Amino acid sequence: MKIAIDAMGGDYAPEEVVKGAILACRELDASVILVGDENLISAILDKQSISGLKLEICHTTEVIGMDEHPAVAVKKKKDSSLVVANRLVKEGKASAVISAGNTGAAMSASLLTLGRIKGINRPAIASPMPTAAGVSVLLDAGANADCDPENLAQFALMGSIYAEKVFGIRNPRVGLLSIGEEETKGNKLTVAAHQLLKNSGLNFIGNIEGRHVHNGECDVIVCDGFVGNIVLKLSEGLAGVLIGQIKTAFTQNPLALAGAFLAKNAFTSIKRKMDYTEYGGAPLLGLNGISMISHGRSNAKAIKNAIKAAIKAVNEDIVTTIASAQTSPEAAD
Amino acid sequence: MKIAIDAMGGDYAPEEVVKGAILACRELDASVILVGDENLISAILDKQSISGLKLEICHTTEVIGMDEHPAVAVKKKKDSSLVVANRLVKEGKASAVISAGNTGAAMSASLLTLGRIKGINRPAIASPMPTAAGVSVLLDAGANADCDPENLAQFALMGSIYAEKVFGIRNPRVGLLSIGEEETKGNKLTVAAHQLLKNSGLNFIGNIEGRHVHNGECDVIVCDGFVGNIVLKLSEGLAGVLIGQIKTAFTQNPLALAGAFLAKNAFTSIKRKMDYTEYGGAPLLGLNGISMISHGRSNAKAIKNAIKAAIKAVNEDIVTTIASAQTSPEAAD
Repeated sequence: MKIAIDAMGGDYAPEEVVKGAILACRELDASVILVGDENLISAILDKQSISGLKLEICHTTEVIGMDEHPAVAVKKKKDSSLVVANRLVKEGKASAVISAGNTGAAMSASLLTLGRIKGINRPAIASPMPTAAGVSVLLDAGANADCDPENLAQFALMGSIYAEKVFGIRNPRVGLLSIGEEETKGNKLTVAAHQLLKNSGLNFIGNIEGRHVHNGECDVIVCDGFVGNIVLKLSEGLAGVLIGQIKTAFTQNPLALAGAFLAKNAFTSIKRKMDYTEYGGAPLLGLNGISMISHGRSNAKAIKNAIKAAIKAVNEDIVTTIASAQTSPEAAD
Repeated sequence: MKIAIDAMGGDYAPEEVVKGAILACRELDASVILVGDENLISAILDKQSISGLKLEICHTTEVIGMDEHPAVAVKKKKDSSLVVANRLVKEGKASAVISAGNTGAAMSASLLTLGRIKGINRPAIASPMPTAAGVSVLLDAGANADCDPENLAQFALMGSIYAEKVFGIRNPRVGLLSIGEEETKGNKLTVAAHQLLKNSGLNFIGNIEGRHVHNGECDVIVCDGFVGNIVLKLSEGLAGVLIGQIKTAFTQNPLALAGAFLAKNAFTSIKRKMDYTEYGGAPLLGLNGISMISHGRSNAKAIKNAIKAAIKAVNEDIVTTIASAQTSPEAAD
């Protein structure tokens, strides 16, 4: 199994992407195709000890920038690292594609190149979300700003499969993000989706509220991509603000500063728990192929972990599992 | 000016509500009508030194519980503390009403009793939101799960007036909570609302993303009540989880514990910054009267601060200001 990675995508590309690929080869015995500018990639590889590692380069001449219009760029830049990396999966030369570049373009390239699983109306970004209890899967994290109740029901199914197969959570608890826990509470979308989920055969625990998102009460958090993206970015932002305030407070007096020094390890352990790099990437579920979208600020460790998750998704045959669940008699009802 | 307070509403009512009223009378020279069971209220008052304070009791025989259906309870329990407190404002016997009880019932009672300002289609809960820079106003925080673009434009106007008059923020910066900062990014609702806000004459700074909610980038954060309620509860929940993790981490080893002890004051200062009791209550804007909704867990300090905000809203004549802005030639365009 080979993993194609967009070596040019991300704030710290190609350096950190290439280093992450090397880590994955070393630690996971992965086989990686680095897609991008051969000269730049080779220059980084030359400084590393990579003998014996299963690393290949697939040279491309174009790069899609962070600010380019996703659909336009994907259609125009046919020899971009992102488009070519996706094409390798389509052609069976790679089993999964990973990009930390322009998220919209990554979605667009994967959707256009790999296509949707039959029966799935909208693919969704399934973002791992650190919680007090471990990790949950939040979807959709931003692929679809406007959704209908059927979309949400499909997100729930795909998220359950992913949580079970990739995170190893048995019979994952699915929560519908809403306002108010009663089934009649929420907006029109969630009230209708609640009824579909109740009859879905999934382990649906009902509506959850914003305050439950991070307490680990459920394993799969279902919402539209507008709400999901706000939840994701708000969580990142608030954690940053709180950590900033803690730092400021600790440096305001010598006693506190001494305390902060003594408690350094404690801080490190919290930071690790909240660390997105532990999970590496969010799969775009519902496509005929595995496509992982990584954080723009991904470092080598995040890239390595994205590769790890991609390998697991391939090994567990996520695509076939989702496709079968769609065509099963239950789903057709 | 008298403030009517639902003495029976809230997790710690009537004890903390009555004590909060006493604090407000003492510290702010407020004049408060305690609406609720006279026996219970008197029993609390008897244990306090209240001589010279402008406190009255308005006896009622019914209480609306936290789990009752809002509209049904409000219509049925005409002698409930909540309904009577609102009626006092309608009849001109009080200038504002405050309740920390059933939020849905509080909205319902105020809407039915006080009525909407002409031109305002939907009243909104304007929740104070602690940020890195101070405080912002988030609205709607949960009154309207489904909104149209005009609702959002009206929320922006009401929020601006409140931020300026009550928080003293000159020319408040209004941000539209969306996904992506460009005006074409978001869901159908926010894309349409963006256009209305651009031409509103307000100090509209454009779309903001989830990560900007807590960094103090804008003073008024506009969104529908579904998103607003999730943002509010998510923020509260995540802050709780992080503080819990910090506590756990600090108690895991003696050095960290010593550090935590030394840094105690630093923690207290952060907690104070995130403390909802500092702001006391969220007004339901758009009504013909001032109605403040307080957190269910309000303690005496939160109640006192809600009374303080209500007095300020009355003094600044928020209702007339919103009504005039609605009927001004600009708004009629």
